[in-house]
Parts: sequence; C-alpha cells; structure tokens
Amino acid sequence: MALLVQKYGGTSVGSTERIKHVAHQIAQFQQQGHQLIIVVSAMKGETSRLVTLAQEIQARPNSRELDVVLATGEQVTIGLLAMALHDLGIHAKSYTGPQVSITTDSAHTKARILKIDTDRLHADLAAGHVVIVAGFQGRDEAGDITTLGRGGSDTTAVALAAVLEADECQIYTDVDGIYTTDPRVVPEARKLDTITFEEMLEMASLGSKVLQIRSVEFAGKYKVKLRVLSSFEAGEGTLITFEEDNKMEQPIISGIAFNRDESKITVVGVPDHPGIAYQILGPIAEASIDVDMIIQNIGHDGTTDFSFTVNRNEYTRAIEILKKQVLPHIGARDVIGGEKIAKISVIGVGMRSYAGIASRMFRVLAEEGINIRMISTSEIKISVVVDEKYMELAVRVLHKAFDLDQINNVEAKTC
Amino acid sequence: MALLVQKYGGTSVGSTERIKHVAHQIAQFQQQGHQLIIVVSAMKGETSRLVTLAQEIQARPNSRELDVVLATGEQVTIGLLAMALHDLGIHAKSYTGPQVSITTDSAHTKARILKIDTDRLHADLAAGHVVIVAGFQGRDEAGDITTLGRGGSDTTAVALAAVLEADECQIYTDVDGIYTTDPRVVPEARKLDTITFEEMLEMASLGSKVLQIRSVEFAGKYKVKLRVLSSFEAGEGTLITFEEDNKMEQPIISGIAFNRDESKITVVGVPDHPGIAYQILGPIAEASIDVDMIIQNIGHDGTTDFSFTVNRNEYTRAIEILKKQVLPHIGARDVIGGEKIAKISVIGVGMRSYAGIASRMFRVLAEEGINIRMISTSEIKISVVVDEKYMELAVRVLHKAFDLDQINNVEAKTC
Repeated sequence: MALLVQKYGGTSVGSTERIKHVAHQIAQFQQQGHQLIIVVSAMKGETSRLVTLAQEIQARPNSRELDVVLATGEQVTIGLLAMALHDLGIHAKSYTGPQVSITTDSAHTKARILKIDTDRLHADLAAGHVVIVAGFQGRDEAGDITTLGRGGSDTTAVALAAVLEADECQIYTDVDGIYTTDPRVVPEARKLDTITFEEMLEMASLGSKVLQIRSVEFAGKYKVKLRVLSSFEAGEGTLITFEEDNKMEQPIISGIAFNRDESKITVVGVPDHPGIAYQILGPIAEASIDVDMIIQNIGHDGTTDFSFTVNRNEYTRAIEILKKQVLPHIGARDVIGGEKIAKISVIGVGMRSYAGIASRMFRVLAEEGINIRMISTSEIKISVVVDEKYMELAVRVLHKAFDLDQINNVEAKTC
Repeated sequence: MALLVQKYGGTSVGSTERIKHVAHQIAQFQQQGHQLIIVVSAMKGETSRLVTLAQEIQARPNSRELDVVLATGEQVTIGLLAMALHDLGIHAKSYTGPQVSITTDSAHTKARILKIDTDRLHADLAAGHVVIVAGFQGRDEAGDITTLGRGGSDTTAVALAAVLEADECQIYTDVDGIYTTDPRVVPEARKLDTITFEEMLEMASLGSKVLQIRSVEFAGKYKVKLRVLSSFEAGEGTLITFEEDNKMEQPIISGIAFNRDESKITVVGVPDHPGIAYQILGPIAEASIDVDMIIQNIGHDGTTDFSFTVNRNEYTRAIEILKKQVLPHIGARDVIGGEKIAKISVIGVGMRSYAGIASRMFRVLAEEGINIRMISTSEIKISVVVDEKYMELAVRVLHKAFDLDQINNVEAKTC
C-alpha cells in the first residue's frame, strides 16, 4: 500500500465522460489498496472561458478579482469528480485550496505556496476517503483567494506530496512522458524512461510544457518522486530521478528544449557603472515580471547595452516600466525590443564531465547559417537565442548532432 | 448617507453587459454618499449549466459535492462585478460566503444561516470600499461549502442587512414590484406600493416567486426594511412594511397567490390514535422535506385518512420514505397521490378585522363549478387546493371578486 498523489490535467478531465474515466482509474488504484490524494485542473477550455468573461468586463482584469473568478474552474472539477467516485460507491471528499489551508503569498495570479495544513487530509485518508483537492489555488494570510499561475495544479500536487510524504506524485497528462524534444518538430524524438531533476528543471523552464517549473523545483527540494504519464493510455511514463540514483547511465545530452514565448528587451546606452543591473531589473522584479536570460556587453565610451528576455505576455508591461521608472533615472538612451526570437537549449547532466558541448552546438548552428543572438550557459545547459524563423531547423539539426534519436547515445559518454 | 444592502438577481447580472450596467447603477449610489453591500446571484443560466454537468455525472448528485459545484456560479459574478467597479475607478472587494464567515447548518443544498462575522465587512466599509458578497452560499461549522437553496441570495442579502443594521435591503430583480397576483394570469393585476411582512410571507411561500420566503422571515424577524424593485427600469418598487407602520390603509385582501409546484399525498386507512401525525411526518422532516398543507379527517371504524402536500420535486422521495419507513410500522392501508393539483390563496392582513372572506371565496369558486379539494386557513390567508386545470379561472374570478383591480379597494374595509 502506497500513498499516491495523482494530478489530472485539463484534458484528462475535459468532459463529464473523461471525468468518469478518471474516476474508474482512481477506483482501480484504491482497490489495489493505495491511499489517494487527487489534484485536478479546470476542465479544458473553462479557464479560457473565464478569462474571456473577465476581459469583457475589464481589459486588464484586477488581479485579486481575476483569482476569485479563475479559482471556480477547479472547484467545479473537484465536485464533479467526487460525484463520479460516489457513483462508483467510493467515499470521496473534495476540497478547494483555501479549504485545506493551502496558504500562499499575496502575488495574485502567480502566488507561491507558503504552507499547507495536513490535519484534515490525514483524517480523511485515515477514514478511507479518496481526497480530491482543487489545483492551482490557495488563499493568502488575509484569507483572499489566490491562484498559482500557469500549470499551478502541478505545483499543488507536488506540494501536497511533499507535506504528506507521499510515495510518488503522478502527473497524468495528455502525453505519455518526457521526450528528447517536441515530436511535432522532430519526429525521431524519443520518450525518456528517466530524466534527472536538474534536467527536467531546465526542460520545464525552457518551454517543454509538460510540467510547470515550480512543481519540479518543489519536487527536487523535498525529494518527491515525480512521474509524468498519460491518462489516455497505459504506460510507465517518465520517472524524474535524483542524479545520484542514476549515475551509471547518464547520457551527455538528455533533451533539447525550445521556447518562442519570450521577448528580448535591450536598454541602449546605459552609463556603465556598478549597480546598473539592479537599477534596471529591480523595478521589473517588483512588478513580479520574471526575467530569463540577461546579457550585459562590455561597455565602450562609458556606456553599455543591457539586454534581457521576459515572457512575451509581460513585454508591454516591462517596456512601460522601463520607460516610466527606469530611463528617467539612469540616463540611458533608449529601450528597444520586439524582434521575433526563439530560445533553444541543449540540456544534460552529462555535460558536466564532458567538454566541448558548447562548441559542437555552435558549429552545428553555424553550418546551417543560423546566427546566434544571445548565449547563456549553466552547468547542465547551453541556451541560445536565434531568429524565430530558424527555430525548427535548429532543433532538428541539434537533435541529430547529439544522437538523441539513438537509444544508445549513452555510450557516447562512456567512450 | 445610508447603509444599503442591494441584491441583484441572475437576470440583472445575466451578461457582462448587464454586469457593467449594474456597476454604473452602484456607482451612482456611491456618489450619493451611500455605503454599499452588494449581494449577487449566479449569471442567468449558469446554475442550470452546473446542475446539468452534475447530473451527467450522477443522476442524483451527492449533495455535499453539488454545493461545491453550485457555489462557483455566484463566485464568478462577484469577481466580474468587482472588476466592473474597478473599471469605473471604484474600490470594490468581493467575498465568497465562506470568506465572510456566513456560517450555516450542514443541510446541503438547503442550508440555513446561523451566524455571520461582520469584522471584515465593517473594516471594508470604513475604508470606503463597495463590498460584494456571493449570495446563496456559506460554510458549515466543519468548513464545508453549503448553499441555501432556491432564492438563497435574497436570504443572504437580508441576513447581511440584519447583522449590519442596514437602512434598507433592496432586492433588484426583473419585475418592478409585488403585484396583486401574476399579471400573466390576470392582466388587471396591480403593483402594490406597500405590502405588510405578514402578507409578503404568505405571498412568497405560496408561489409568488419574487422573494424567497426565508428572506422575508428573516427580514420580519430582524425588522429589516425590504424593498423589491427592478434593475431594468426606474421606480420605487414595493416596500415591505411592518403592519403597525401602516394601519390606516389596509386593504382587506392584498393579493392572490397560486402554486402548482405541490403534490398531494394521502396515507389511507391510518389507525386513528394519538401520535400518528408525528409518526407519518417525522421521517419526512428528517429527510428535510418541507410539508405545506396538512389535513387529517375525522376517523370512522378506527382509521382515518391523512393528507399533506409537498413540493413536487420531493414527491417521489416522500412516497419512498412513507412506503419503506412508515407504512410497515403504523399499519396503514396504502399511500396514494399524484393528482394534478394547484393551491390558491387569498391573502390580506385586513381579513383579521373583517368577517366573511372565506365564505365569499368559497361562494365565488362554487359559482364557477370549481370543486375544492383541501382547505387551510390562517389569520391572514385562506388557501384552497383545486384541480390544476381550474387554477387560472379561479385566480381570475377571485381577483375580480375582491376588487383587486381597483386602486381604491381599501374603501371596502372602511365602509
């Protein structure tokens, strides 16, 4: 008997028929003797419907009130899934995020979980109930409803698995695991049986949208065993492992991620003195806008150019903040941006012990005539920004160059 | 400056356009210096949509989980209305029922309010906010979500007006006030400027569906000034008054209510001994089924027939309970029911001091050949049950017989 936290995403609960299907699957797990905490998303399309209603009222909806509206999507699903389980004769109880005291900070529409009270959950599990919790939502210290942002239901599931010390956190979705890259771009992409947390973190943050990055961070931090699998077909999915569990068979490169959801912003003619990065990015951070890549070129004649990327949705707001709050104070010449760019990253814990990955990547791109606009590296990934039109080509040639279509690309390292 | 509680029903907030219209109206009240608590229903059609989803999952939805699903309807409206007010530059904050601690009993889908904490509401009003509260919902002592049943948003509004000692509770709806009877049945029906609480209570409970009965009870109990008016057109609506405020101009009969939502059930051949009424109705009450009219005929040869009416929705359940839990124990012969009946009531505080109303009513019905199946009387109303097919005819002839189409029918009493 294991304690399992299972999360079912919007497609998995996209209709009343699908909800019944999920209930049957849960019933099987219960019959096997497992204790179950189920986290669900809003039914597919519901969040969009609610956002549309909100935008009909207010072009930029008040974020506190948007959370009030959006949180209803998951609330409908928990009630319906509980009914479907009752219909199978299974005791189930549903809870909203606030009801099980999922306490977050007050950053509406992108809140972070601070703590969860588990008394109620433990009591229900002990009583033999299947417990269903609304993903994506919580409440702040003042009792206001908050939501966790895109993919927040994954975070809810992992956080619950962490505080309950669950045996495994299973993320059911519409794909059957993590692939070396998006099979729609590279048909030869392979499903991975395992991937390390570090790699998954980079994959998620770079746009492989199977799991939300925060959920992976959480899982890594609290050592939650995380598995991604399909609610539509049987299979073992992809288990996300801790590196030390998995030393012998590390491929150099596990996957290639890409992302066209970012925009590049450049502050031109910035006076080149200490503290300037903080002066530029401080107001951006205060507005809760996440910054991804950051590049500061070496200055000449006392000024420099400072570039960074933000999510495309935040582009307009970031530009506004820079023009109003930053430019007047730091005496930079201008703020520019808006080119169509894409980011591509090769990722693998193996590259720590294997040199030359970056140069191989740059050579492959150069051979195809693809100009690199920004570069950033970490221990286990190398990212480049290129013109958006080259994205697919770049992903394909890199996938091939790093032998990701070969099941035995592991050997490349052991040589 | 007054403290007003305003409630807007489902049609009043039936679209984002309507919600914006309501926001403009609220803005005007605020500019006049009033403090405002706004209670809203789900957008028209939303509750039905949610019920349909639930019934697709489970023919008789689990009531705890149905409440979880249904409560989302009002939650969407509060967020949207708050956004609409923010868009007009007005500070507004929305709250679900549980958030403002509207504590109820645990009778899911028909819960009753036990208490409301007002700290948060007072603080927001003091800060100049318009406070928006989701109608129809609360939480029980265990923290589970509850709903108050049909028309529950009215009850929420009146309960808030009571605990906050508001100057007036204004129920905005799609009709412009209370009429002597339904104008669709009697075109000569007149809007009443005032009606007493006692009369309104009888009107509401008998199927004039402008206000939910519980809200009127609440209002009477806590001396809340209640006004029914239209959100679609200007006008003073109908003020519901306390009898003592209004002594001089009491008409004998204020209105005629009717209702075809009831079913009659008769337990046949009941042993005629003390306690039998309790033995029959006890299990019905335990199942939270409301009983309306009750008739027990005088027995002969040691048995009697015991008849009562319940809401048509509860008919099947009531019959089931009687057959399983009651018949075997009391040794009655049978349970029968199912005829198509309607109830018609003439209502007026004036009848207290004016004899002969009942006989006039029975004479008028007899002249039209309408057979009376059940009779029940109270101090201010006389109700009869007739075959459903005679309902419209009966209402029309009674409306005329009691001069309800005459503005000066008041004189009938002072003569």
